[in-house]
Amino acid sequence: MARLVTVDWGTSSLRGALHEDGILAAERAFARGILSVAPGGFQSACEEAFGDWMAVPGTVCLMSGMVGSRQGWQEAPYCACPAGAEQLRARLLWLEPQRLAIVPGLCCEHAPSAAGLPQVPDVMRGEETQIIGALQLLGREDGLLVLPGTHSKWARVQAGAIVSFSTWMTGEFYALLAQHSILARMLPDGQAGADDAAFELGVKTALTGPGLLHAAFSTRTLALFDRLDPGGLPDYLSGLVIGEELRCRLAMSNVEEAGGAPVVIVGAAALARRYQRALALAGIASTCVGAEAAWAGLALLAGLSVPASTAN
Amino acid sequence: MARLVTVDWGTSSLRGALHEDGILAAERAFARGILSVAPGGFQSACEEAFGDWMAVPGTVCLMSGMVGSRQGWQEAPYCACPAGAEQLRARLLWLEPQRLAIVPGLCCEHAPSAAGLPQVPDVMRGEETQIIGALQLLGREDGLLVLPGTHSKWARVQAGAIVSFSTWMTGEFYALLAQHSILARMLPDGQAGADDAAFELGVKTALTGPGLLHAAFSTRTLALFDRLDPGGLPDYLSGLVIGEELRCRLAMSNVEEAGGAPVVIVGAAALARRYQRALALAGIASTCVGAEAAWAGLALLAGLSVPASTAN
Repeated sequence: MARLVTVDWGTSSLRGALHEDGILAAERAFARGILSVAPGGFQSACEEAFGDWMAVPGTVCLMSGMVGSRQGWQEAPYCACPAGAEQLRARLLWLEPQRLAIVPGLCCEHAPSAAGLPQVPDVMRGEETQIIGALQLLGREDGLLVLPGTHSKWARVQAGAIVSFSTWMTGEFYALLAQHSILARMLPDGQAGADDAAFELGVKTALTGPGLLHAAFSTRTLALFDRLDPGGLPDYLSGLVIGEELRCRLAMSNVEEAGGAPVVIVGAAALARRYQRALALAGIASTCVGAEAAWAGLALLAGLSVPASTAN
Repeated sequence: MARLVTVDWGTSSLRGALHEDGILAAERAFARGILSVAPGGFQSACEEAFGDWMAVPGTVCLMSGMVGSRQGWQEAPYCACPAGAEQLRARLLWLEPQRLAIVPGLCCEHAPSAAGLPQVPDVMRGEETQIIGALQLLGREDGLLVLPGTHSKWARVQAGAIVSFSTWMTGEFYALLAQHSILARMLPDGQAGADDAAFELGVKTALTGPGLLHAAFSTRTLALFDRLDPGGLPDYLSGLVIGEELRCRLAMSNVEEAGGAPVVIVGAAALARRYQRALALAGIASTCVGAEAAWAGLALLAGLSVPASTAN
């Protein structure tokens, strides 16, 4: 499998990479998330995006992400935890034998939090591939990882297998509050990211509780009483939701249980840096791996390995 | 002051009542919240709604709610906690001497939750009046009260004075999640309120943590895996947010510190019943007072008293 096309096809974007003899030869990105593709239109959308790469005989294409969901190209049934590269590889959904496959997502069960309550399932699609890729890049087989985003995932890996994970709607809560809540009218235009002090104030506030339902309102009152510059409000609110995620996740279990190794943050640089700063404020060391984790994971599943030295 | 008009003028609604010789003679409600009134238009909106009541010489009108906010008729500066009927009466904002006044809102300061963090202000407008009215109706001078709503308020009253309170954006979070989040597309049309079992499951799930950012996602996965009937999803989600409010508020301080008296729930019957059920699931007794609390509070501020026997 010397020529490989790796595709990360999510809800709102489509990214692909061409690997020749283990070398990343080219990358492409399109605003063609699965929600923009009509049912039955996935084959032609894939052809349009990567047809030239795939034209060379013997090329294999592996895809991960929401492309394998019920709303995607074809539903790839979830693989149950614990699962690592071996289980995922065995459960690839081949659309064309030896040529085009979708990586299944993962599911796990959260134990009942009290007597009489049911187990609650959790799911991921795409992150499983980034997780095994990130650990491959780091040369690790164990760890606690966080993949920040619209729906952040925290995953525990032991001996190369993802044993459990949980979903946190942090990015979506931020967007809901910033765009649709009473706080929206107080927030200036523009994204969070400019005011580190406001972000840190938000994180510290959230880390000490008592919870986002209450703390979110402080975005309004601090502005009403002129105690926080309006320009810092998006960063303060971003710090509140990220800090809330950390506080609640840390309360679930000891993040140091993996032998004290740094938490692995997998994601785009700007957001990863915010999580790294927030984790530091909670006294927790971390290391970052970027978007190349998806390519490393897909290459691993295709039977290729990527040298650990490409980690940043 | 034998003839009194009491007005509760909020963001989205306008309600009024006429009291003659201490008897509730008439009530009216309009979809004329302050957001629907143009600047400068409050006097005529008030005339339209209650002009006939006010035409009798000697009639006094007291108004509470967002009508006293910066976006309302005229800003009534916040009164600082601790404050009871005496302080509120002294700070009435008279728009027409002896005839028309706005009750000021309250502000309080939350102590820093950790060293290096600032005090955070909190505010209410309208609830202060309902609180003193509810306690008057119950014949109490002390208590812990919750006023459920878009922004729920929890208030501690000692010797007739509101000493502290906190705001919880519970109703707004529910609306954001139900209308604008990824969960919205899974929820059937219609309001929460039909499925008590789903509501209780949501409350119990939230009471055991680990936090709404994670628990909210279970609304999606329980539906994805056909473990919860779609018709019950709004109630489940409602239970999650109300349970989260209770869990976090209970963690802040011992709700029994007021001598074990039942928590007082002030609000419309349907929502009050949900809070009463949720509190019971948390092992906490409560008693309910309805919308008449606002009239009792305004009458108290006007120097009239309402017999305690009108409590439900």
